[in-house]
This record gives sequence, structure tokens and C-alpha cells, in this order.
Amino acid sequence: MTKRISILGSTGSIGTQTLDIIEEQSDRFEVLALTTNKNIDLLVKQASKFQPELLVVGDQTLEEDLKNSLYNSSLKNIEVASGKQGLIKAATLSEIDVAVVSVVGFSGVVPTISAIKSGKDIALANKETLVAAGNIVIDEVEKNNVKLLPIDSEHSAIFQSLIGEESRNIERLILTASGGPFLGKTRDQLTEIKPKDALKHPNWDMGKKISIDSATLMNKGLEVIEAHWLFGVDYDNIDVVIHPQSIVHSLVEYVDGAIKAELGLPDMKVPIQYALSYPSRFPNKLSSIDLTKHDLSFTQPDNDAFPLLKLAYEAGKTGGTLPCVLNAANEIAVSEFLNENITFLDIPDYIKLVMNKHQVIDNPSVENLIEADRWAREECLNSIKYWKKGE
Amino acid sequence: MTKRISILGSTGSIGTQTLDIIEEQSDRFEVLALTTNKNIDLLVKQASKFQPELLVVGDQTLEEDLKNSLYNSSLKNIEVASGKQGLIKAATLSEIDVAVVSVVGFSGVVPTISAIKSGKDIALANKETLVAAGNIVIDEVEKNNVKLLPIDSEHSAIFQSLIGEESRNIERLILTASGGPFLGKTRDQLTEIKPKDALKHPNWDMGKKISIDSATLMNKGLEVIEAHWLFGVDYDNIDVVIHPQSIVHSLVEYVDGAIKAELGLPDMKVPIQYALSYPSRFPNKLSSIDLTKHDLSFTQPDNDAFPLLKLAYEAGKTGGTLPCVLNAANEIAVSEFLNENITFLDIPDYIKLVMNKHQVIDNPSVENLIEADRWAREECLNSIKYWKKGE
Repeated sequence: MTKRISILGSTGSIGTQTLDIIEEQSDRFEVLALTTNKNIDLLVKQASKFQPELLVVGDQTLEEDLKNSLYNSSLKNIEVASGKQGLIKAATLSEIDVAVVSVVGFSGVVPTISAIKSGKDIALANKETLVAAGNIVIDEVEKNNVKLLPIDSEHSAIFQSLIGEESRNIERLILTASGGPFLGKTRDQLTEIKPKDALKHPNWDMGKKISIDSATLMNKGLEVIEAHWLFGVDYDNIDVVIHPQSIVHSLVEYVDGAIKAELGLPDMKVPIQYALSYPSRFPNKLSSIDLTKHDLSFTQPDNDAFPLLKLAYEAGKTGGTLPCVLNAANEIAVSEFLNENITFLDIPDYIKLVMNKHQVIDNPSVENLIEADRWAREECLNSIKYWKKGE
Repeated sequence: MTKRISILGSTGSIGTQTLDIIEEQSDRFEVLALTTNKNIDLLVKQASKFQPELLVVGDQTLEEDLKNSLYNSSLKNIEVASGKQGLIKAATLSEIDVAVVSVVGFSGVVPTISAIKSGKDIALANKETLVAAGNIVIDEVEKNNVKLLPIDSEHSAIFQSLIGEESRNIERLILTASGGPFLGKTRDQLTEIKPKDALKHPNWDMGKKISIDSATLMNKGLEVIEAHWLFGVDYDNIDVVIHPQSIVHSLVEYVDGAIKAELGLPDMKVPIQYALSYPSRFPNKLSSIDLTKHDLSFTQPDNDAFPLLKLAYEAGKTGGTLPCVLNAANEIAVSEFLNENITFLDIPDYIKLVMNKHQVIDNPSVENLIEADRWAREECLNSIKYWKKGE
């Protein structure tokens, strides 16, 4: 039976790789909706190949342009929508089985929750959704009895290592981190980092935001919070080890001392395909690993040079709206770093500043989270402006 | 519910470790029968601690000695048996749930098959049983709907990596091998090897026979054949990599490129306990691994210095009585090496000689196997005598 799929964020790194897989396995999957934030050229190209029923552009000012590009073509019958309502429409389309959520940042929260409420399975690449709204998402997943399948390679590895096992037998989760492009550098050596340096990831080909998060280790911090919600494991039982080769994608230690892991070459197509094929596995054309070509090593993270990992643990343990604020402040700080308005080492400082000012709300509603997210962004931007002015 | 257990070979390395686990988890397991080949002193000590119903000594000439040691003690009501019939009795005791088969060599075949036929689950540490009689054992396991749980760390790792997965999705099995004490040595450097050198295994604390098999890589060859039967995978889809640290205990590659592995410190108590606790896992006192203390490396086996691995693949692919002959000739050659009657490099030569003389019988019966085993031992001993005389 064909699985019918919506891809929220089809023009990004995960979205395009998801489409590559669907193209290779066209007898198994069908695309019904595609969305982009701004990249309507690529969206239209994807539409002409995959013939979806619905196209959505996040930026409402581009809706007319999108309609115009379809008007004089064979694609003119495709429905077009835009903005937040358009994303929700793509996420809840009645014919779809799975919504792939690969939009970047907090914008994934509302469409994901809407999709869950309409009974769709979720293939989740957007980690901010669980970081900010983990309590609500997990609650709705259970209420609506849908599957929440992680696309992040680390969480996919843990998910795969847990198949057929009982979660009460988990002793701890061990997330691996490549360490990013600045692994081994001391704090002092990070003062002069430019965006172009931080965008060079050693192992994975990823988007800009996640590349910076990988360089600061915030990515791993967000993943710790994500793992907490996905697998119901206490923060004290989630460890992070640096594993520069990115071959072991993560591990689960059980109460009896056995450790299970999923590993392989660093290629996002494996976890993406698995999220779509689960509980089956489908053959593909990916190359097989030759273990003799890889020495595997593991080290402790350097919390002095990369303080955001510890900060994420703190936000996670406090809970409530604080992880949402951590994430929002980080989105702004990363964006301001990419615009060269602040330095690499400023990123954690501004996030800490915003977190310290925040009045945490426990068991937040979606509205509380939207407000906390808005507040944290504004607060982070204002703080940056204030300090820049003082310079 | 308490699991009731027979241990065939309780005084060897696996047997004593099994009893350590049972002692630690005395609310979960109960011992009903213990057997030894010759070590009646240790058997009596074990009996006074675990109070089984039946004690068996393999060597029939020691039955009276065993009875005498029990006579004047609180153990005098324990039933005593000996020889092959004794072993079968221990394996088929009506009250037991699981037979742990940790006797060494071909002698495990008949009691294991008897236990399966009486509906007992098997925790199998004796790899020769599957090597010699894989076709019969797997057939009986299916007919009698019992569980066959591997205790070998490699097969336990594969078994654990397959939980919840479909076997049709297996692309290949990757067995890891420590490489033994002579890893990295060339064939020329192996001419002067003495038994005491070969008995020093770098990672695992094991019995004598298996230590020599580990030094020649025959152990891995036997495990390849064992894996073929246990998991129903073709020889062409079973690989061996040398992994000197023995941390990754073995791996399964799936059709979609994902690889799952079980890993941990080299401690047989993990797979032994898992074979007893399956499908549950029980907490224990084993120390947890710190991955940052271990660099993991993998290399190809050296088939020139260690030709027995390839020979085992050949025997496995030919099938019939040939793996039984490989195993029997190996048991004799190892024993003659330990007695310093032949050299380390003679071991593969004698095995090859016997294999070349053997007339293979396809789909052998137990009787065919017993005869092939007897013939191969005699043939190997005679060849050794013949060549020694000629020297």
C-alpha cells in the first residue's frame, strides 16, 4: 500500500533528501503536499516532478508569485495556500498518512500539533517542536494514538535500538555528537570565528541554522531535550559523548549492562527513509560501510568552550516555558551571528541573559509557548541592540 | 515466576559464571541439575550452595567417588547419575524450563537435541552443537517450538540486534573477532608458539579449548557456521572483522543501510544473563562502560597466518557432515597441540588433511554425525601418529 505524505519544508536539506527517497521508492510513497518558506522556484520544480495536490508558501507575500508561476503550466490545477494556515492545511490534509515536519525552528510547533490532532503519523525532523512543546506534543501523540517517528540521526538510532525492548529497561541514553568544526579548540581560540568557518561541518551536509547549532553544541543540547520527551527518560540518564567520526549515531544502555547502537555512514537518507518505512525496512542504493576504514573514538564534551550543552540541560530540567525560551533566544542569536552582528562567543551569553530574565510558566499551553517564544525573540534582539549601542 | 534451570557443564568457565548470576538473582532462578565432566570437588561445592535435585558426572568411572562425597553430608538425598545418559537426564528433567548447555565440544549435541525434544528452552554456549548438527537442531527447535538462546557474546549481540526486526531485512551479519593473542603476527612468526602463549587471551577469560580456537581464528570460523544456523543467513552474507578491543560484540546490517550492534565491556555475564532473562532484562551489578576510555578499530582477518577461518567457511558452504568433521579434527588437533605433540601451525594442516579424506554425507542424521565425529577424531589422531613416526 502506498503511503501518502505531506512534506512541511520540502525545499530545505531534509525536505529535498526526503523527496530523493520518495523518487527512488515511487511505488511505495506518494506526495500530496509540499511547502516552502520562500523558495518558490524550487517548490515549483518539485511540484512538476511529484504532482502534489497542494503547495504552500510560508511567506504570504509570495502567494501571488507562486500562483503566477503555476498559471500557465500543467500545474495550474494544484491548490495553493500560504502562511500559518497554509502550513496547517498541508499538515492535516485528509488523504495523508504521514506529515514530514522538516521546517526550521519554532514554526513547526503548531502544524505538528494540528497534524497529530487529525490523526496523522509524524516524521519529525524539526527538533524545536519537542524542545519547546514536548509536554503538549507527547500528550497529544498518546491521546490520538499516532506514531511520532524521529528523523534526527541520533534519535532514529535510539528509536531503532529500542525496537522490541521495554522502556523500563533503559539505564541511560548516550547521544553522540560530532563535536562540530571547532572540536578541540579552547574558548580563547573561538574569539575570531566567522560564520563561514562555523558553516563547515566535518561530517554532515546540513542547513545553516543547524550547522551553527552543531558548532556551538546547542544542537546536541536541543537533542537532549528532544530525547527526554521522545523516550521518556530523565535528564540524569541522558549522556552526551563526542564522537568525531559520526559513525555510531547514538546508543542505549540497558539495566543489564548491554548497550545497543545504530551505526553507519553519516547519511541522513537512512533515518529519513526509516521514518517513512517503519516498521518495515526497504532496500535502497546507499553504500554499505566498510568498518575497517573507520577508527571510532569518543571523548567528553568541553563545557568551557561550548557552554550551551549544559545550559540546555538546565533549561530541560527546569522545564515549563524555559526550553522554549532557550530555543527562541538561540534562533535569534544564531541569526544575528550569521548577520555578523554578534560574535560566536556572544551566542551563549545572550541566551543566558534572556533565560535569566524569563519568568517560567509550568505546564504551558500552546498560547503560553507562542508568547514565550515571541517575548524571548524580542528580548534577545533588544539585548543585542542595547549592547551594540553601548559599544 | 522462578525459572528452573539445568546447567550442563557447571564447573567450566561459562558454568561457573552462570551460577554467579543465579546466586545474584536467586529470586528469579533456581538450579535443579548440575553436571561436570570430571571436576567432582567443585561440583559438590556447587551442590552444597545451590541444592539441586540431580548431579551428573560425565566420566562414569567417577560416579562412585561422587556418591561417596555426598554420602556423609546434608547432600545425601541428591540423585546422582553419570555418562551420556546422565547428561541427557539432566537436560530433560521434567521440572526444568531451560537447559544451559555449556559442556565443551561435540558432547553437547545429543543432550541438546534431547532437551529440545522434551520442550525445554536452550541457552547455548556450546557452539559445536550447531556447527556439527545445525540442520537437526534448528529443525527440532521449530518442530518443538522452543527458544534457542545464544550465550556466545557475538551471537547474543546479533540476537539482541535482531529483536523486533524481520529477518528478511537482514543484509549481512558482521561478527567481530578479537584476533586473539597473535593478532598482527605473520605466519613465519607463529612457528615457535607454545600452548602457554596461546592460552593468554587479551580480552576474555575463557577455557583452554576456546582460547586456542581464538588464537587460530577457528573459534570465529565455528561462530560463522553457528550464526548461519541460528539466524538463517547465507555464508556470503556473514562477514568477520577483527576488532581487537572486543567492545562491539557483533553487528547486523539491514537492507536500508542501518547497522545495529550490541556492545559493552567484554564480560560473558551480560550474554549469559540475557539468555536466562530473555525476553526481559534484569538489573545487575556489572560495571557500566565509559566509551571515552576506548578507541575502537576494525581490520580484515589475515587468512594467510590464520587459515582456519576460511576453512570453516568452506566446510559450512559444503555442509552435510563436513562441519562436524572440521570440528572433530579441530578438537583433536587442539588437544594434541596442548599436549605439545604438534605445533601451532600443524593444527590447520591436520584439519585440512582429515577434511580432504572425508566422504561428505548430506542431510546427516544424528547417527551419521556421531560416526563422522568418531571417524574424524580417529583419522586425525592416526595422521598425527603417522607423521610423528616419520619424523
